[in-house]
Amino acid sequence: MPFRRKLKRGPQVVLPKDAALILAYSGIAPGSKVVDAGAGSGFLATFLGTYLKPGKVYTYENDERFLQIVKDNIRACGLEDVVVLREADVTKGIKEKNVDLVTLDLKDAKKAVKHAHKALVDGGMIVVYSPTVEHLMGVIKELKKYKFTELKTVENIVREWKTDLTTRPETMGLMHTGFLTFAKKIK
Amino acid sequence: MPFRRKLKRGPQVVLPKDAALILAYSGIAPGSKVVDAGAGSGFLATFLGTYLKPGKVYTYENDERFLQIVKDNIRACGLEDVVVLREADVTKGIKEKNVDLVTLDLKDAKKAVKHAHKALVDGGMIVVYSPTVEHLMGVIKELKKYKFTELKTVENIVREWKTDLTTRPETMGLMHTGFLTFAKKIK
Amino acid sequence: MPFRRKLKRGPQVVLPKDAALILAYSGIAPGSKVVDAGAGSGFLATFLGTYLKPGKVYTYENDERFLQIVKDNIRACGLEDVVVLREADVTKGIKEKNVDLVTLDLKDAKKAVKHAHKALVDGGMIVVYSPTVEHLMGVIKELKKYKFTELKTVENIVREWKTDLTTRPETMGLMHTGFLTFAKKIK
Amino acid sequence: MPFRRKLKRGPQVVLPKDAALILAYSGIAPGSKVVDAGAGSGFLATFLGTYLKPGKVYTYENDERFLQIVKDNIRACGLEDVVVLREADVTKGIKEKNVDLVTLDLKDAKKAVKHAHKALVDGGMIVVYSPTVEHLMGVIKELKKYKFTELKTVENIVREWKTDLTTRPETMGLMHTGFLTFAKKIK
Repeated sequence: MPFRRKLKRGPQVVLPKDAALILAYSGIAPGSKVVDAGAGSGFLATFLGTYLKPGKVYTYENDERFLQIVKDNIRACGLEDVVVLREADVTKGIKEKNVDLVTLDLKDAKKAVKHAHKALVDGGMIVVYSPTVEHLMGVIKELKKYKFTELKTVENIVREWKTDLTTRPETMGLMHTGFLTFAKKIK
Repeated sequence: MPFRRKLKRGPQVVLPKDAALILAYSGIAPGSKVVDAGAGSGFLATFLGTYLKPGKVYTYENDERFLQIVKDNIRACGLEDVVVLREADVTKGIKEKNVDLVTLDLKDAKKAVKHAHKALVDGGMIVVYSPTVEHLMGVIKELKKYKFTELKTVENIVREWKTDLTTRPETMGLMHTGFLTFAKKIK
Repeated sequence: MPFRRKLKRGPQVVLPKDAALILAYSGIAPGSKVVDAGAGSGFLATFLGTYLKPGKVYTYENDERFLQIVKDNIRACGLEDVVVLREADVTKGIKEKNVDLVTLDLKDAKKAVKHAHKALVDGGMIVVYSPTVEHLMGVIKELKKYKFTELKTVENIVREWKTDLTTRPETMGLMHTGFLTFAKKIK
Repeated sequence: MPFRRKLKRGPQVVLPKDAALILAYSGIAPGSKVVDAGAGSGFLATFLGTYLKPGKVYTYENDERFLQIVKDNIRACGLEDVVVLREADVTKGIKEKNVDLVTLDLKDAKKAVKHAHKALVDGGMIVVYSPTVEHLMGVIKELKKYKFTELKTVENIVREWKTDLTTRPETMGLMHTGFLTFAKKIK
């Protein structure tokens, strides 16, 4: 069963199309060590946890409304040994070291960039999800300040087609979720 | 290291953006059993193999020019225990049973649909990659004939942005790779 | 006042974005002679008529439900001297000769291609609006049969952005109206 | 003959797809009075001039390298009575009054917004072409400052399809030209 069917819904989550691109472009694999913030409902943390097992995902969340949902979703996915919930504010610091990937999906993502830089292994990657261009610009500025390299920003548009009686794109569809920015900590 | 950097290049491959969507939308996970055809250079087989371990990927290829590339790439990824190369024509039959996912990326994909149907577990998924609408139409017709359900066809467009001095989409970019069709074997 | 505000609504119409592309890509100008079918509510005919004045637009319609709407819209736009309503089935024939442009937006567009070919001046253009790929394929086949040249098929996607508090694309939007095919009668 | 074939090439021009959208969304018609800046090679001025005749287009340009090209193109289109070249810097002021539409395609577009506001008739429209988001943001801020209403920003993506042997979108294509912002002077 697709693991996401097991999830309880909470705050707006990164969609599967974007989570998948994070997985594919970051090149992480089983055994990788990931820091994820904010957890939200835990979708991205459990998605990555599923494929990184026996690695670890440390997912930060300091909004008390979401903590129980995250815990429930980690358990529903059977990932208690893989996904660790950190009830903390990622903009105040990251405890982990030698991290392969940091994923940031929070309003103040730019304030977490310096902590991500410190936590990452040389050559490790950061991925930031930006709903708006203003968010994106703030993040890019910080990434450049900390000399991240290979910056790549993309939009991921999945366009649905109808194939019932005739073949044509759907009239209406999802035009935007967020901008995804990938960057590498210089070695 | 992103595993795809290890790969030898051969015939045109499914791109990471499309492979990622196949992973995310099919919902397969570690332990899943997959049949993949044609192997091409083995990109999709090794991508899926990386994340399905300790599951199995049986990848079919009958073009002799590609066989050595596939073998080399399986070894380069250290997936000898996960990805099995079948030197056979998938349109003639699939040996495996109780398969969770069949992925088809070949000219005659429609001729493999009936074999996929037989090989799949109830509730298992098929994903077909169609470079053209004619290919897509042929596939849809076969999927309907074998009563596959939950047909979903999408295009996946990744649009790159520039963020060097100013912020704007790249002028030129990749507009099309293929149509991805997902369907489920009825329970 | 934008002339389209004057129009009575009837059947689904070609949208301004598509009408504009027809104008720009066909290169017609004041004085041009156009045949348009089917009239629908008369949007495309009056749009083109506005800019082709003192040319002529002959707009064919044989669905009796729409005739009064077309007449009302021609009058509302003050184009009685420019847009002529032909209460006839364009798939049965086109009376006009030496036409600069034929625009087809009807289910049986492919059946009108031969009449368009006869009506067009050497070097004249045809534009066909196809809601589905099946429609498009039927039209392309006919265009090739009558040796039309410079075939060009496009989708025109207008993506709206929000700029109220932050800057970002609209979440949902119009993903598809139709395929526009442009072709030229060989000289 | 499509009038744009007559044009001499100079600096980068607004493409037909974008010029067409400006025509259709601004709702201008024969007799309208337009101010256009900067002229560049005169493409947009002559495009609009063609369809606004017997109206007027006043096109501003202060880059001496382009003046002769604009003059040549106005003459090549036979629009000497319609398109008037103003050898002046639009950011310093606009002489015309009661203008129906102001189109801005220049680096310092935001500095021309106040002059556009003064030149426009009540209910008149402004359209600004922004190659980057930074440009767009500067323009939006000025438009709000001068209380323009009905702000609408769009991207216009024309995606080409191949229909030779099979039917499929072109692999590579034009992903971005500019953002078009439309706004109305409050009545």
